[in-house]
Amino acid sequence: MAKFCIGIDLGGTFIKVALLDEQRRPTPTREFETPIHEGPDAVVAAIVASARRMVKEHGLAKGDLLGVGIGSPGPIDISEGVIITLPNIPGMDNVPLRELVSKGLGLPAVLENDANAAAYGEFIRGAGVGTANMVLLTLGTGVGSGIVVDGKILHGAHDMGGEWGHVVVQPGGEPCACGQAGCLERYSSATYLAQYATRLIREEGRDSSLSKLLDQGKTLNAKDIVDAAKAGDELAAEVWDRATYHLAVACVNISRIFDPDCVVLGGGMARAGDELLVPVRRYFRQLHWALTPVRMEIHLASLGPDAGVIGAAGVAWSGLGDGCDT
Amino acid sequence: MAKFCIGIDLGGTFIKVALLDEQRRPTPTREFETPIHEGPDAVVAAIVASARRMVKEHGLAKGDLLGVGIGSPGPIDISEGVIITLPNIPGMDNVPLRELVSKGLGLPAVLENDANAAAYGEFIRGAGVGTANMVLLTLGTGVGSGIVVDGKILHGAHDMGGEWGHVVVQPGGEPCACGQAGCLERYSSATYLAQYATRLIREEGRDSSLSKLLDQGKTLNAKDIVDAAKAGDELAAEVWDRATYHLAVACVNISRIFDPDCVVLGGGMARAGDELLVPVRRYFRQLHWALTPVRMEIHLASLGPDAGVIGAAGVAWSGLGDGCDT
Repeated sequence: MAKFCIGIDLGGTFIKVALLDEQRRPTPTREFETPIHEGPDAVVAAIVASARRMVKEHGLAKGDLLGVGIGSPGPIDISEGVIITLPNIPGMDNVPLRELVSKGLGLPAVLENDANAAAYGEFIRGAGVGTANMVLLTLGTGVGSGIVVDGKILHGAHDMGGEWGHVVVQPGGEPCACGQAGCLERYSSATYLAQYATRLIREEGRDSSLSKLLDQGKTLNAKDIVDAAKAGDELAAEVWDRATYHLAVACVNISRIFDPDCVVLGGGMARAGDELLVPVRRYFRQLHWALTPVRMEIHLASLGPDAGVIGAAGVAWSGLGDGCDT
Repeated sequence: MAKFCIGIDLGGTFIKVALLDEQRRPTPTREFETPIHEGPDAVVAAIVASARRMVKEHGLAKGDLLGVGIGSPGPIDISEGVIITLPNIPGMDNVPLRELVSKGLGLPAVLENDANAAAYGEFIRGAGVGTANMVLLTLGTGVGSGIVVDGKILHGAHDMGGEWGHVVVQPGGEPCACGQAGCLERYSSATYLAQYATRLIREEGRDSSLSKLLDQGKTLNAKDIVDAAKAGDELAAEVWDRATYHLAVACVNISRIFDPDCVVLGGGMARAGDELLVPVRRYFRQLHWALTPVRMEIHLASLGPDAGVIGAAGVAWSGLGDGCDT
């Protein structure tokens, strides 16, 4: 009889659930509302109920299940299985989520941070399939990342590894909310590139078709920039170019440090498709050393918003199952 | 009966040999001349003879030996055990060194690149003892590095990982011989910081006590710069400061990416001791994010030039022995 692991992706809006069989084939993902204003007990109860419902809908019994993997925003203590705090869900402070969900479902559980889970999802089922070493950069509000080395997620000594969004790519550069200056996130995230365009127009008086949107009271987003760049807006093209250049610098550094098979670009900005991929790949080849040929590939993520829930179930398989990284 | 692994560090001047017991305690290192002009067969024969002599001098028999680890400059193919080419030893092209040494000694062998071996040596026996995650930066002619993640050396998909010397720390910065611009090596290696001081004096006409040495026909080295900086030379202080600043940027990035227990600074420049360590630590704290406390430590290497040979034997223990990372 086929066995399954349950994947849970805990977010500030939805609890996503999917099941993954031994061949790492996922069921479609189901979303259930996160009861964010009812305290930790309600959140745990909602996770358990969501998972049970999913199991029932697929006609599975408890004996068909190996365990559950939970992906959660941080900061979390992965080895202890504890949520330290969650900015988007009030009251989730020092909650031993792994133990509570494990008890609620009567199954062994593992806890992983959501960026790592997304990277692992792409690794086992998305753009990283067939590789052993992969880095995911998620380009959205910020720049998230997860790193897979020899088939395993890199955690570091205090579960804080894999923060490519806060790697300094311009010493002394743009100040970042984290307290550093010149972080990748300040150049290549959707939020900050739109902010940069706004700054150039509003504070430096630069001319751009985007000023019409600002005059309408709109907050610019990454799609506005790409669309304007495609339509020939010079300022938008310059802003987009700056973001792709710094992403390519990060890719060169990833290549030097990890020598991975590939870097995978995900998150909202990856929806720009070739508008993102082509310039990043071009700059990457330009900036890459000459000592060895370019071997690292750069791909767009392929699982979209399901990467995290699939990865969470995958982490459960790898932590509780046969250890096979199929 | 105690078992031993043999460590070999193949260099362009010496073949170094040490023995490592199960507790990873090394014998003193012995050096034997490398026959660099006699071709690959002579090099292999010298390695085998050096190892045999060392074993004999310690009164050991073949039954006391578990295997041999060889550290070599690159490029090498670690998984195949093959030297691709050695800039310092002519004729060593596509030499299956692992197999040849294994046959010669009648023992299983492993091949590792010398920078990784040095990092592993510091990890098991030097400044990294007691950690599980560590990065070594070797500051000499260039900047070499080796990375230990969860007790294992990071190799990457094509054995080219761990090249922190060629991580870009200043996009569009100093041109590097590797073909990139702004590599760490161009700011923080002994060679290049001395070159930078020379350039400022000779090409930009800057005033410095170091110009006396240049007038005498001397080529500046890192020690000249540190000594002049300590004696109050402003230009030397500025050049040294620039090197330590960029090292600290690299340390911040190592912290974000690997979250290791520590970074270890080795190589010739590390002989400057506190003159190196104090400013690097100070900049590291200044540049570090505010989201979590500073937990990564920065230490000087403690094994000096023996790190590589001890690490090579350690790699043999970890690859051929009990897998224990004591």
